[in-house]
Amino acid sequence: MAAMYELSASEAARRIRAGSLSPSNLVAACLKRVDATEPAVGAWVRLDRDAAARVAVQRDIEAREGRFMGPLHGVPIALKDVFDAAGVPTISGAPAWATRTATADATVVARLRGAGAVPMGKLVTTPFAFLDPSTTRNPWNPEHTPGGSSSGPAAAVAARMVPLALGSQTVGSVLRPAAYCGVIGFKPTHRRISTAGVLALAESLDHVGVFARSVEDCALALSLLAGPDPADPHVSAVPPGPYLAVLAAPAPPRIGVLGALIAQATPEMAKHLDAILRELEGAGARLVDVDLPDSFATLRTAGETVLAVEAAHAHSPLYASHAADYPPRIKELIERGRAVTAPDYLAAQSARRRAGDELDAVASSHDALLAPTIGAPAPRGLGSTGDPGFCAPFTFAGLPAISLPTGLDPSGLPLALQLVGTAWGEARLLAAAAWCESVIRFDAGPSL
Amino acid sequence: MAAMYELSASEAARRIRAGSLSPSNLVAACLKRVDATEPAVGAWVRLDRDAAARVAVQRDIEAREGRFMGPLHGVPIALKDVFDAAGVPTISGAPAWATRTATADATVVARLRGAGAVPMGKLVTTPFAFLDPSTTRNPWNPEHTPGGSSSGPAAAVAARMVPLALGSQTVGSVLRPAAYCGVIGFKPTHRRISTAGVLALAESLDHVGVFARSVEDCALALSLLAGPDPADPHVSAVPPGPYLAVLAAPAPPRIGVLGALIAQATPEMAKHLDAILRELEGAGARLVDVDLPDSFATLRTAGETVLAVEAAHAHSPLYASHAADYPPRIKELIERGRAVTAPDYLAAQSARRRAGDELDAVASSHDALLAPTIGAPAPRGLGSTGDPGFCAPFTFAGLPAISLPTGLDPSGLPLALQLVGTAWGEARLLAAAAWCESVIRFDAGPSL
Repeated sequence: MAAMYELSASEAARRIRAGSLSPSNLVAACLKRVDATEPAVGAWVRLDRDAAARVAVQRDIEAREGRFMGPLHGVPIALKDVFDAAGVPTISGAPAWATRTATADATVVARLRGAGAVPMGKLVTTPFAFLDPSTTRNPWNPEHTPGGSSSGPAAAVAARMVPLALGSQTVGSVLRPAAYCGVIGFKPTHRRISTAGVLALAESLDHVGVFARSVEDCALALSLLAGPDPADPHVSAVPPGPYLAVLAAPAPPRIGVLGALIAQATPEMAKHLDAILRELEGAGARLVDVDLPDSFATLRTAGETVLAVEAAHAHSPLYASHAADYPPRIKELIERGRAVTAPDYLAAQSARRRAGDELDAVASSHDALLAPTIGAPAPRGLGSTGDPGFCAPFTFAGLPAISLPTGLDPSGLPLALQLVGTAWGEARLLAAAAWCESVIRFDAGPSL
Repeated sequence: MAAMYELSASEAARRIRAGSLSPSNLVAACLKRVDATEPAVGAWVRLDRDAAARVAVQRDIEAREGRFMGPLHGVPIALKDVFDAAGVPTISGAPAWATRTATADATVVARLRGAGAVPMGKLVTTPFAFLDPSTTRNPWNPEHTPGGSSSGPAAAVAARMVPLALGSQTVGSVLRPAAYCGVIGFKPTHRRISTAGVLALAESLDHVGVFARSVEDCALALSLLAGPDPADPHVSAVPPGPYLAVLAAPAPPRIGVLGALIAQATPEMAKHLDAILRELEGAGARLVDVDLPDSFATLRTAGETVLAVEAAHAHSPLYASHAADYPPRIKELIERGRAVTAPDYLAAQSARRRAGDELDAVASSHDALLAPTIGAPAPRGLGSTGDPGFCAPFTFAGLPAISLPTGLDPSGLPLALQLVGTAWGEARLLAAAAWCESVIRFDAGPSL
């Protein structure tokens, strides 16, 4: 039988509701797991040990009285340190002058708390959620990066310290570290989830995402997080879907295989993905070779212009007084953005939207498009968080995407695939992902 | 009894439905009125005489059979020549190289046509709907400008050539010419009406608006035009209001008087508006002095940056090949926009939105804010379309606004007031405007 800290959020929630697991015991097990594994990993910025234990006792009492706050009653979660949590500083992985004191929860944090979740604390982000590395280590091999910018969430969920964590993705900051760490990373369509109270990097590209160890947990989180928010007028009015219901008995999906991207991975990764594809096909998936639209390359170049400009905008108040103190990669990004003219920015936005629409049209005729999440396993060393290039175009298109772990390379580092859905089609994507998950059945954790 | 061409769109529609007026006779009366007045005014780019007559006959037949296409069955309308109408060129007041051949109706044109309206043709716009003047003359005095950029719609509705016309406003292009010409000009909240198929000047600021001779016609038009459009994803999902129902018996409104703006008009205009205010108060309106938020000035400066940048973007393909041929004022605007950096543009957008929200908060505690539409009557000469300064801040804030004619100055030129509502509060604004209209009772037309 799995240790308590190994349980998925959904399974833990079910046991709590059934009375066979108490929130306090679960939180205590996770805290103990943190104690055992954190020295090797370094995933946490702030562990709210006492607060979590106190809230868990409250959830215990309610559960005993048959009162349940919501679908995550008593389940521990953790937040990338770009999400505001009331009364706690948001440090954003940055020097002290960038810290903000949060007086209110980010909308998504409030929603998880309102659903009964027990926040355990804040997880490491790279500085300002960009490419400058953090000190977190990959739980599968401490000599390797866990990826970024959501380094802490990926590592903490992989190390079984917490079953569910919030992350954010502007280029490849959820799916890439999830892939490097052997867990699931998911981000829905742009503007599906409120970003109120979340550190901005580039408004047109910023997504809230989640780290979990089951597709069901991603669907559960989305069902709680999706939808309009008075504090974020940009959230779409497109109604959320039946994210959990579609997982009941998913049919073998029709998958559009992006061979041109698989060919850009290392030969080992390509060979591995090919074997996975054969396995999926053998289990009943319908595989279709899909060509990328000509505008796919534009998506990357236009998205990078938008990223640089909007980062310069988001940082302009701080940058005005602290330019010299910025970490080098985000500094370079901001300087690049400052040099772009406004009409060139708007042209990049138009090109990005057009190319995104073309990619979405391709995605819409399949249950999911399949591509690598990463071109190779996590690089050695902590000097780089790896290449987000396989995630970037889909993020820049705003399409929903999920990374599933698929196995380990000979050195024991995780491998992964990426499934991409049509805009607002998260339910269809999650159903396809759940089916693939049930075929691939990778649920190993690192020895720690 | 009023001549047929004097009827409002709503009254004409009622008579057509009652069988006491035939679409053909109405269209013929309007065409005859065009023949009589157009030589002095010059409002039309293209009069679709035969097509209008043919469609009117079709509406006759349907009406006789008791079949009515919609609320504008058989009512003539006309379009500022920035709206696409299928099969007809959209010239936009510009040199021939800028003409586009419309293969489909703009969404708003299709909606009016679908409601039974009979399009009579295209009306003069200033070049590219900006400040370079057109040759249209003010029907009240041909030595004076009718204003712009919707010069033709204002002049045609004032001259009783057509009861209802579509215009567009990015700064002051509907309300200002309406005020100069003694008719009603109305534009709803930004993104309330689709702009698909309408020439873009500055996407964040472009509004579709209407010219009419009764508030009821504005409400009728809005009830047909408001709401989502698959061709324009930017249209808001905020549900349209009961625009016509609220006009049934409007109560005396609570009006926030913007004295600081009235003080910026000429002493004659200020005195006139003061007399109107006394009249409204005498009839039961509750007047409250309202101070402008400190950020009001920012709205203007930030809005002008957004305008310049987005105009440069909208024109970039044409400007690349025809810069030398552009009219001087829009050329200057585009050049100004090209020099803005992208972060400065985003800063201007943020400042504009913040200031707009503050102004909206002020507007929301009143049924309407009252300000001048114009600082003085239409200037002499056709060299300028006048000063849009009294309209600009409200347009840049995206708030709904309506201009009502209030009388004539000693030289016989129209005077006007502007009522501004809270965002998405068009129903409340229109009810206040209808009440004011019933008190002011200005319905004179020019002698032509």
